[in-house]
Amino acid sequence: MNWNRKDLITIQDLQPEEIVHILDTALTFEEVGHRDVKKVPALRGKTLVNLFIEPSTRTRTSFELAAHRLSADIVNITATASSITKGETLKDTALNLQALHADIIVIRHSSAGAAKFLADRLDVSVINAGDGAHEHPTQALLDAFTIRQKKGRIAGLNVTILGDILYSRVARSNIHLLTKLGARVTLAGPSTLVPRVFEQLGCRVCYNVEEAIADADVINLLRIQHERQRQTMFPSIGEYASIFGLTKERFAHTKPDALIMHPGPINRGVEIDSDLADCKRSVILQQVSHGLSVRMAVLYLCAGAQPAEEAA
Amino acid sequence: MNWNRKDLITIQDLQPEEIVHILDTALTFEEVGHRDVKKVPALRGKTLVNLFIEPSTRTRTSFELAAHRLSADIVNITATASSITKGETLKDTALNLQALHADIIVIRHSSAGAAKFLADRLDVSVINAGDGAHEHPTQALLDAFTIRQKKGRIAGLNVTILGDILYSRVARSNIHLLTKLGARVTLAGPSTLVPRVFEQLGCRVCYNVEEAIADADVINLLRIQHERQRQTMFPSIGEYASIFGLTKERFAHTKPDALIMHPGPINRGVEIDSDLADCKRSVILQQVSHGLSVRMAVLYLCAGAQPAEEAA
Amino acid sequence: MNWNRKDLITIQDLQPEEIVHILDTALTFEEVGHRDVKKVPALRGKTLVNLFIEPSTRTRTSFELAAHRLSADIVNITATASSITKGETLKDTALNLQALHADIIVIRHSSAGAAKFLADRLDVSVINAGDGAHEHPTQALLDAFTIRQKKGRIAGLNVTILGDILYSRVARSNIHLLTKLGARVTLAGPSTLVPRVFEQLGCRVCYNVEEAIADADVINLLRIQHERQRQTMFPSIGEYASIFGLTKERFAHTKPDALIMHPGPINRGVEIDSDLADCKRSVILQQVSHGLSVRMAVLYLCAGAQPAEEAA
Repeated sequence: MNWNRKDLITIQDLQPEEIVHILDTALTFEEVGHRDVKKVPALRGKTLVNLFIEPSTRTRTSFELAAHRLSADIVNITATASSITKGETLKDTALNLQALHADIIVIRHSSAGAAKFLADRLDVSVINAGDGAHEHPTQALLDAFTIRQKKGRIAGLNVTILGDILYSRVARSNIHLLTKLGARVTLAGPSTLVPRVFEQLGCRVCYNVEEAIADADVINLLRIQHERQRQTMFPSIGEYASIFGLTKERFAHTKPDALIMHPGPINRGVEIDSDLADCKRSVILQQVSHGLSVRMAVLYLCAGAQPAEEAA
Repeated sequence: MNWNRKDLITIQDLQPEEIVHILDTALTFEEVGHRDVKKVPALRGKTLVNLFIEPSTRTRTSFELAAHRLSADIVNITATASSITKGETLKDTALNLQALHADIIVIRHSSAGAAKFLADRLDVSVINAGDGAHEHPTQALLDAFTIRQKKGRIAGLNVTILGDILYSRVARSNIHLLTKLGARVTLAGPSTLVPRVFEQLGCRVCYNVEEAIADADVINLLRIQHERQRQTMFPSIGEYASIFGLTKERFAHTKPDALIMHPGPINRGVEIDSDLADCKRSVILQQVSHGLSVRMAVLYLCAGAQPAEEAA
Repeated sequence: MNWNRKDLITIQDLQPEEIVHILDTALTFEEVGHRDVKKVPALRGKTLVNLFIEPSTRTRTSFELAAHRLSADIVNITATASSITKGETLKDTALNLQALHADIIVIRHSSAGAAKFLADRLDVSVINAGDGAHEHPTQALLDAFTIRQKKGRIAGLNVTILGDILYSRVARSNIHLLTKLGARVTLAGPSTLVPRVFEQLGCRVCYNVEEAIADADVINLLRIQHERQRQTMFPSIGEYASIFGLTKERFAHTKPDALIMHPGPINRGVEIDSDLADCKRSVILQQVSHGLSVRMAVLYLCAGAQPAEEAA
């Protein structure tokens, strides 16, 4: 298929074949990471700006490394350093970056809709690296890539997402992607964090962890994000861990080939038992590795370069 | 002409033909921004250090992108991260950077004279990216480049600079450059921010905005910089906007081809009506683009490379 | 000899011939800094991550420039920006960087043992850029390189280290290196900062500055590091300067070819008279320059590339 989007803003807007095309393109880049010289010249002379209005070392580093591998030039702009603090509007900041001939703006922002707001107003490529509690499309794509690598398919699988669904852009992007590609999605966690309204997105909502993970092929654990939550959502971290944490005992009652995923950073002993994070069925670090290939694919496709086979 | 300065510290010290030479060199680099691969090898293997003791995302990013285009290596040092906070003198910090074989130091500092202080003591190139309320030479050069592109000349034009003149290094550098190249400069704004002493630099000082812009070919609006001003300079932002802001009504009484300029970041609704910032006669974003070419030219000339025609 | 370490964690663990091999390799890189294009392709396509959990512009910049010269890609991660603040363990942060196919992690950390902790758990190269009060091996190597350049040898020299020994990783690494290579080390300073226990490392401990420096070939002054010291260690900065500072009068009574060294940043007027810092026998800035070559050598050897002669 021909990719004809300059931006990647949401999974919700993508067609299933577009998702598959990104995953297929990522596969061609996967091999670059194992070369001695881990670079391709695909984006040489192009400039990527990491515009992180909300800090994130992990995602910024992953995009930065992906851009290095594609031979792009990189400029990092973080919130505290940015002229945004001088009262400039987000649109003006972005128009300035465009005037500086940036080719791709990767934006992380605390407000839902920030990436789309820019994409609609700029000629350059805009990649959403997380906008409020809305979407985090490259995380869902790397999760899907990892599932496909391990399970050979996504359609027909049972995927359980466990934790803070309400405030999670990772959950929203995953729900859209998995249901578009034919997986069955179960959401689980405290009722305060997993409202029934998510059933309208085609998910099963379940407040009993054991039941939620019993027939799961994939268990995706979300980080308990203290910073975004009101303290009244659940009594304590300890109570969360004992009722909803993935313990060895709970995991013993799942399918023998169920995978454990987590977008990181993990809270050992809270949402996941420390030993389970390191066990063979945990693919948490493989998600990180695949994130590089997926982000290379997204940058490559949106920057509108030559066919992936030629570039790689 | 032959360029024989290792540093760019002030516009005040430059000869008119040196200014024109920088603008002409910038013109040869302008085309690079429209190439597919936006790079020339002119400074390959040379290292530029952005030493920003006063933060500025906008100027730092512009120099960083200019250096990327010239294929230089870049190291960013900002005030909070710097060992300056450990009590090291500015001279020692700079001598250390020279000992690390940096080729160019781009310095932004809150003290007037900081760039010259370093240039006099170092063998490497020093570029002033703004020193206190003294000078910001590359800003004046990019303003002049933009005027020349739009008007075909600078000599004989009427240029009105409106706003906070007293604390503005942009105003000082512009006044020097424009008068050297034969433009007539009018300064306007609250009397507390536009003292009569500026007449000694060859400017007209005018406290009535309508009168100041009536015959202007170029209106250069300066940002009202809250952070550097005592609150007693004018009663309120609202009052400044109503008396000195460039409104649609005021702009309707200017020459039909008068240009609107602004060094950014703009305060929409304060020094400029939001619609005017986006109108066809506003060249604010073109200033940003031209800044890249002008900074490439300055880096290129001061680092003492081959003739521009060869490099491009 | 064949280098077969993936990490550089301490000087204490190195064999004398390994130290000499690093210094010899650094010598082959010294010449690169004087080329017009100051780069070699030795680490092209490899990624270095500067993981600075404790801030240090000086050391970070030196490693960054060394990596640029070896054509590596660089990602900077500093403590405040890092996900470490989100409760992730250091090991998990590092495993994530490894999953992102980083080739070399340069770590600065406030805890002794942090670098070894990572080196033992990761397949990638780990370079200790300072861990608590434990070791700072590249500083000791660049000090040794400078001594060897100036004196032609290390064996048999008298080296006096003066200042805050107790809290100094620079002192510890220097003591190990110098005694391994056959120098005689004297430690001097206030008794609260130079405990007798250091005699067990083979050093002479001396509380009289004049006596300590009388027959020194090299005087290495350590920075008085306010931030790590309890205020009770000595009465005041002024008193330290008068009793232990290297003044012109004291320096007049040393050997006529004694060298002055300092790891920087220097406190002019505290541990060293300002004029002495700039005199001909001070090699402080040469230490900085040599640091670049030494770090190139360390990165090059640990990343396991081809023989140095080929690469350079």
